[in-house]
Amino acid sequence: MALSTMIYNHLPTSQPIIMNKLSKIHGLAHQQVVLDQPKTKTFNRVSSPTESLSHLLHLHLETPPRTQTHQINWNSYGEEKLSTPTTSPKEVIAQNWRDMHASSNWDNLLDPLHPWLRREIIKYGEFAQATYDAFDFDSHSEYCGSCRYNRHKLFETLGLSRNGYKVSKYIYAMSHVNMPQWLERSKLVDTWSKDSNWMGYVAVSDEEETRRIGRRDIVVAWRGTVAPTEWYEDLQWKLEPYGHGMLRYNKSSASEQVIKEVTRLVELYREKGEDVSLTVTGHSLGGALALLNAYEAASTIPNLPVSVISFGAPRVGNIAFRDELHQLGVKTFRVVTKQDVVPWMPGPVYTHVGAELKLDVHSSPYLKRGLNWPGFHSLETYLHLVDGFVSTTSTFREDARRDVALVNKACDMLVDELRIPHCWYQLANKGLVCNAHGRWVKPKRDPEDIPSPHMQENINVHALEARMQTQDK
Amino acid sequence: MALSTMIYNHLPTSQPIIMNKLSKIHGLAHQQVVLDQPKTKTFNRVSSPTESLSHLLHLHLETPPRTQTHQINWNSYGEEKLSTPTTSPKEVIAQNWRDMHASSNWDNLLDPLHPWLRREIIKYGEFAQATYDAFDFDSHSEYCGSCRYNRHKLFETLGLSRNGYKVSKYIYAMSHVNMPQWLERSKLVDTWSKDSNWMGYVAVSDEEETRRIGRRDIVVAWRGTVAPTEWYEDLQWKLEPYGHGMLRYNKSSASEQVIKEVTRLVELYREKGEDVSLTVTGHSLGGALALLNAYEAASTIPNLPVSVISFGAPRVGNIAFRDELHQLGVKTFRVVTKQDVVPWMPGPVYTHVGAELKLDVHSSPYLKRGLNWPGFHSLETYLHLVDGFVSTTSTFREDARRDVALVNKACDMLVDELRIPHCWYQLANKGLVCNAHGRWVKPKRDPEDIPSPHMQENINVHALEARMQTQDK
Repeated sequence: MALSTMIYNHLPTSQPIIMNKLSKIHGLAHQQVVLDQPKTKTFNRVSSPTESLSHLLHLHLETPPRTQTHQINWNSYGEEKLSTPTTSPKEVIAQNWRDMHASSNWDNLLDPLHPWLRREIIKYGEFAQATYDAFDFDSHSEYCGSCRYNRHKLFETLGLSRNGYKVSKYIYAMSHVNMPQWLERSKLVDTWSKDSNWMGYVAVSDEEETRRIGRRDIVVAWRGTVAPTEWYEDLQWKLEPYGHGMLRYNKSSASEQVIKEVTRLVELYREKGEDVSLTVTGHSLGGALALLNAYEAASTIPNLPVSVISFGAPRVGNIAFRDELHQLGVKTFRVVTKQDVVPWMPGPVYTHVGAELKLDVHSSPYLKRGLNWPGFHSLETYLHLVDGFVSTTSTFREDARRDVALVNKACDMLVDELRIPHCWYQLANKGLVCNAHGRWVKPKRDPEDIPSPHMQENINVHALEARMQTQDK
Repeated sequence: MALSTMIYNHLPTSQPIIMNKLSKIHGLAHQQVVLDQPKTKTFNRVSSPTESLSHLLHLHLETPPRTQTHQINWNSYGEEKLSTPTTSPKEVIAQNWRDMHASSNWDNLLDPLHPWLRREIIKYGEFAQATYDAFDFDSHSEYCGSCRYNRHKLFETLGLSRNGYKVSKYIYAMSHVNMPQWLERSKLVDTWSKDSNWMGYVAVSDEEETRRIGRRDIVVAWRGTVAPTEWYEDLQWKLEPYGHGMLRYNKSSASEQVIKEVTRLVELYREKGEDVSLTVTGHSLGGALALLNAYEAASTIPNLPVSVISFGAPRVGNIAFRDELHQLGVKTFRVVTKQDVVPWMPGPVYTHVGAELKLDVHSSPYLKRGLNWPGFHSLETYLHLVDGFVSTTSTFREDARRDVALVNKACDMLVDELRIPHCWYQLANKGLVCNAHGRWVKPKRDPEDIPSPHMQENINVHALEARMQTQDK
């Protein structure tokens, strides 16, 4: 059974997507999701009088129909939900990986969203989320701006080992231009590095995951920022002269570090006769960097299937840039929410590229109503909405398994009934511990967790490879 | 050697205190600290040109001389300080306890501050601080407004076992009148108690501490509030008709609960032929409640030495109230800082009572300059300043041992060089834990930590007493 014909058997229906109001206002040529199955009766929807009236007046052409959310019994919610697994068994997608990796630009996989593709998107989103969860934001720390864990234990510490990847390199950037609001800086004089920040990492699928997904997948995850309004004006003119060394570290730009490492890995696995793919991911500004980085990788490494999975990313480049990406075969998958303003930045001279999955905050019965810009933009909100998305005409997926509590990690989006505090992702006592004398002190980092980007340059590639092979077995 | 003659041998000098500017402006008749030792040359001070000019113009009559702080070498601070004990060996004060407990209203013990008295003040301040540290402020918790730990493990959990007291009863209050900003309320429907809050506790010195301090000391610690400006206008008219059941719980006012428990304990230990004292303590609004509660205790229980140690408390009562306290023999020790506005509340119709220890935020080299109302009012700031106070004319005590990091528990007062984050006192992930299924959940409280104030009413007094005796041995 071909993938495109088997994906609808779990879903009753879907309808052609209607270009939403905002895109008309902005006059943008978004790539539309194309649906090829016949129209059937709308499933599981209750028409309100207002909605009927709207239909009557053909106003539904301007405002997409609001999906009705299913009712949740909050009283019994705790017992029902909290003792269920958060993930489903993994399907083997080895035979279909080129569809998943966008050989056909995800046609027919988006609306309804194919459940296998959903899991892949969430996997990459979690890789992007890791760049926030492990980042040291503490301006009183001498390691402010670094990753709190070394690359060998990053995934294990964050509970991402189950994704079956291993980190092969950390990416560092140094700001030579003024992006003062973006890079985190320590208040201290003696820091690990004056102007550099941890920007993300390169990871590779292990043997088991490689078998499941049908190729050796290299992931590059770029860290974004949690306060996008502060940098977007800067970004507007700084991204245009791309390749100008916007974010440099140690005489090697962040992008150069990545290209070097990806080239090394591609050669390594191709020598073994393996299929290799590159997936670049990021949220917010990280999503913009992912696109630029993918462009550079596709320009540099011949015949490498390159795709970008971005979340809430601002627009990058103009129509000429889009055409060049297209020519290079770079496939881009943009996840946006209707309520998030960041994807509309920096302005109408820029255009979006690739396929788009547009989510609606109002589709989830777990999320509060009302304006909440940080919440709308939060990557965890995105991942929650992807997990619950079935199609543009269906309600939130009732059997969505992803832990809803994660949404409130760094924002205040969950309904009170869930009893999850807002912005709960925090260290006990901000990392202070009580020493043997009863004094509260900042413990020394484990030597292996102290960032040393300079040493990374001279890393012994063969030793790394040997270690990864051993760990895989 | 009498206490009053031996207390100065560790100190070079002190000078008569000068009534400060604010007290003149307000036209208040503060009780002044009386000093009886001869004036000598000022110790360890460097006169700046501005200061000399000010002396020349006699401006020092209006503005008290700023103590020069000693220089700290921040580079070597970590190694020097962080591996020293936070407390000194305890002196036996059994022979002098009546002086410490204010038989002579602390005359001659305040300026310079007697080191034994300093330790006692900090002990009581830590008892008051415990009411904040253990309080459940989480409005998403069903136990919001309660104490997070049961009374048997409160001190152990907070590291206060070394003070040598045991908690005998928790105090709960219910608001029958409108003090909406003060009581913490859960957002949930099914909570441990709709309108009641944990207000503090009654504790008693154990055998060892009783031997050291020369009498069985009963402590009542009242919780205050961290946002005083919100309640002080309310307080102004609600405290006046005192005894009106301002804060009630379960048909028994908080004060009635305390008087009943204190009466029981006094009778118990007097039957054994022991000397008994009552010390009531509190910070902010808790300090005001402490004074009112002490008044009631002294009125109810004959011949009981009662003293109040309050920190940053607003004024309570008028001159008639002060005279009545005086007549009952209630001794009050008020710790205030010059920069804290709360002791000036609610207004000039009220008067302060008792002895006053006035501290200066600028005296500490560890604290930032600049306006910081929450920091000025914070109890941990108070305890830090008490620990460093020598006399009104001396610099901050160089051998002060209390952990400076504590100051920033819930405010932002410490200089950056200390590298202590602000507001660091927090639970890991706001109390959420990852369960076996990978879901972030609020763990159930230990059954023994679930508040059950109703049961407390029927507590078996003899069983409690037997347990305390056993634990003491």
